[in-house]
Amino acid sequence: MKPSIKEQLPMKIEQIENMIYPFLPEEKGLQKTVLTAMNYSVKAGGKRLRPMLMLETYRMFGGEDLSVIKPFMAAIEMIHTYSLIHDDLPALDNDDLRRGLPTAHVKFGEAMAILAGDALLNYAFETASKAFCGDAQDITTAKAVQILAKKPGIYGMIGGQTVDVEEENKEISFDTLMYIHNNKTAALIECAMMIGAVLAGASEVEVATIEKIANKVGIAFQIEDDILDVVSTSETLGKPAGSDEKNGKNTYVLFRGLEQSGEDAKQYTEEALQLFDALEYKNDFLRELLLYLVGRKN
Amino acid sequence: MKPSIKEQLPMKIEQIENMIYPFLPEEKGLQKTVLTAMNYSVKAGGKRLRPMLMLETYRMFGGEDLSVIKPFMAAIEMIHTYSLIHDDLPALDNDDLRRGLPTAHVKFGEAMAILAGDALLNYAFETASKAFCGDAQDITTAKAVQILAKKPGIYGMIGGQTVDVEEENKEISFDTLMYIHNNKTAALIECAMMIGAVLAGASEVEVATIEKIANKVGIAFQIEDDILDVVSTSETLGKPAGSDEKNGKNTYVLFRGLEQSGEDAKQYTEEALQLFDALEYKNDFLRELLLYLVGRKN
Repeated sequence: MKPSIKEQLPMKIEQIENMIYPFLPEEKGLQKTVLTAMNYSVKAGGKRLRPMLMLETYRMFGGEDLSVIKPFMAAIEMIHTYSLIHDDLPALDNDDLRRGLPTAHVKFGEAMAILAGDALLNYAFETASKAFCGDAQDITTAKAVQILAKKPGIYGMIGGQTVDVEEENKEISFDTLMYIHNNKTAALIECAMMIGAVLAGASEVEVATIEKIANKVGIAFQIEDDILDVVSTSETLGKPAGSDEKNGKNTYVLFRGLEQSGEDAKQYTEEALQLFDALEYKNDFLRELLLYLVGRKN
Repeated sequence: MKPSIKEQLPMKIEQIENMIYPFLPEEKGLQKTVLTAMNYSVKAGGKRLRPMLMLETYRMFGGEDLSVIKPFMAAIEMIHTYSLIHDDLPALDNDDLRRGLPTAHVKFGEAMAILAGDALLNYAFETASKAFCGDAQDITTAKAVQILAKKPGIYGMIGGQTVDVEEENKEISFDTLMYIHNNKTAALIECAMMIGAVLAGASEVEVATIEKIANKVGIAFQIEDDILDVVSTSETLGKPAGSDEKNGKNTYVLFRGLEQSGEDAKQYTEEALQLFDALEYKNDFLRELLLYLVGRKN
């Protein structure tokens, strides 16, 4: 019997890590502490979803040269990691643990955590820009760098993060919640898949379709995450699901209720799949991975 | 009589600001606060030395198309500004004032200052990467982006900042001090002038010479800054120059003494000028600006 995606995932994660770790800096030189903090945070685990989605999208559109995609896989994981380090800081979420390990500021101090976050964001662009090689391929690489700069920025992830930080403990509108989910969560999924498509030579129309698919998957993923939050809270506290006080957190479930949230996630997923299946190119693993992300596959 | 560089500078600064401000984000949208904090910090003043050096180096090598250089001028000022915002944070230097104005974390809170710094660093690359236009010019732009990513990063400015933060209040070696000055200060001057040269089409040899000139100017500039620190401290406190306790700050003067520091700054400047004057291209304003920076011209 074919192994389930959940069974395949550990091996896939290891493959991704083997591809991105070589791009991390060597821990040597006078500035060794910041390099160690960067590597500690990147190596602290995670599902490596963004580089995995990037790679599989690249493969779907016929990309074969791994040397083209690898620097960008490393770069997006660096950007994701920097955002976690800075999110965890005392002035923001003040989290001491992530994935069971001390967060960067607990381990290395706050100053070094700020610098390590800055360093990862900066090094993401340094790593990606090393892919330029002085020939016509640079034109495609340039498009990928543009996406790498735009989606995590002020009109993407940082925008979402800003509103999330500002609106914590406040009543917000559903539109504001969707702005946060679209930018804080979906933008980096879009970034990953669009870069995979661009580097494989996909057309502008195809890249725009991939952006839509990634957005819908990102939103469905976030709704499922919000649902899990409520369900696990209700199990832990023994209270009926949805009865929790806001607790400062604006979630999809608060607006739509548990049942409708499930329906909405399903709807986003259906729409993503419809677009995906209409593409000329196929990637069965990517299709199952997308379904797995939105809680529809084990 | 020809106006002195000091007399010309206010007008030059205004010209630079008129060139870079249009690249700042509009303060609108749900994420408005972070955009306002970014613009507040960039507009808080400063001598605009890095974009000015970039522009003048570009002109020296025959660069004429301002639309090519402007995004990079804005980008390097954004990077310089983000480094100041994060430097000023409570976990680092804990400064409440910069250029007479409240620092970003005082004005917007610590979380927003961290995000505004991240946003400026990210937006620097978004701004620079907008210069890609899908044709052969992209190959030159790519080289400029590579420099923009490398010099402020872990093998440049962030490296220097890391060591400066770690070694504060500690006895360090002269080599370590030079590592800090080379990276924390000189790297961004090198970045500015090298990008100007690259975008104007300078040869690799010329760009390497510009890197050396910028390094020497950067070091001389930092030595002069260290000298001024000591002299102004001695004037304020009424103590003989150089007699101050370390006060946590590792300066050039502590190692070399006041007189030798002045000699060394002069030596670095002479070497920079020798390289500068041997170049095939000339820019009198740039030559005077470099001399002004290292305290040799008014």
